[in-house]
Amino acid sequence: MIVSDKQDFPVTQARRDLEPGPVVLLSCRHAGEHDIMTLGWHTILSFSPSLVGLMISGGNHSHRLIRASGVCGINVPSADLVDTVCRVGNTTGREIDKFSAFGLTAIEAERVDAPLIGECHVCFECRLHDDTLVAGYDFVGPVAVSYTCRVGDRKSVETRRATPYRDPG
Amino acid sequence: MIVSDKQDFPVTQARRDLEPGPVVLLSCRHAGEHDIMTLGWHTILSFSPSLVGLMISGGNHSHRLIRASGVCGINVPSADLVDTVCRVGNTTGREIDKFSAFGLTAIEAERVDAPLIGECHVCFECRLHDDTLVAGYDFVGPVAVSYTCRVGDRKSVETRRATPYRDPG
Repeated sequence: MIVSDKQDFPVTQARRDLEPGPVVLLSCRHAGEHDIMTLGWHTILSFSPSLVGLMISGGNHSHRLIRASGVCGINVPSADLVDTVCRVGNTTGREIDKFSAFGLTAIEAERVDAPLIGECHVCFECRLHDDTLVAGYDFVGPVAVSYTCRVGDRKSVETRRATPYRDPG
Repeated sequence: MIVSDKQDFPVTQARRDLEPGPVVLLSCRHAGEHDIMTLGWHTILSFSPSLVGLMISGGNHSHRLIRASGVCGINVPSADLVDTVCRVGNTTGREIDKFSAFGLTAIEAERVDAPLIGECHVCFECRLHDDTLVAGYDFVGPVAVSYTCRVGDRKSVETRRATPYRDPG
């Protein structure tokens, strides 16, 4: 798995990486705890401000951390990370430290107090913008994307295919 | 373009067709007007009840009809319909009747007062469940999926690939 230098790009282009509906990894931290979760239920909500909606079940350990901190990272894993993505999705941060358990690299966000995942080729730094639908539906959002970065040079990023969502169930 | 008999399937399986983030066609009707729009910004919100969130810009003619009627169809077009999907997305129902302009077949929904699109291999009948975020964000949802159907026999449906979202911009 590759970890390279980050390069920023405009938040209004967040849609280019999120619209195809890839599986993403959410990263978060609060009060000394950090976690990662796999998420497939998300949608772009607005170009500018750059807003995204995240449907995070309340049963996830990350849900509590994101609610408490109000921030998170949205990380787009490439298809070669699919085994790791599945393992992250099939375990809970209540029992293990997913960064160390799965060999993922926590890199610091620029504008929010959350780790990002170095092995993911695109990362978005996000802040909870409106929690109206959290209580009734666990719909965490809209979250505002405040900063985006690509890990690695642009050419290598563009050849890395995102992990498509395909539910076998 | 194929129009076949409808077959129902459980609403709790709506996720199987919507999770990969396909482009969908929304169909709607109110007070003698009907319309179709192309939509890529949507997410599953819940298994049961089966809830979906739709981000429909207020500038769309369909937005007004769906707000007024409180119901719509979510239709999944297969990839061979991509040219039609683009034409639907690049025109407005204020100026043309998209069903007749693009040769699409309106078939009656079972449980809501909305047309469905016969050429789409999967159709969901939906009713607005909560309009809390419509005013601030044009986020129409959650909408409850009350009935789902596949057009055509299962084997032919399973070989029809949904239209993936790929934004060139």
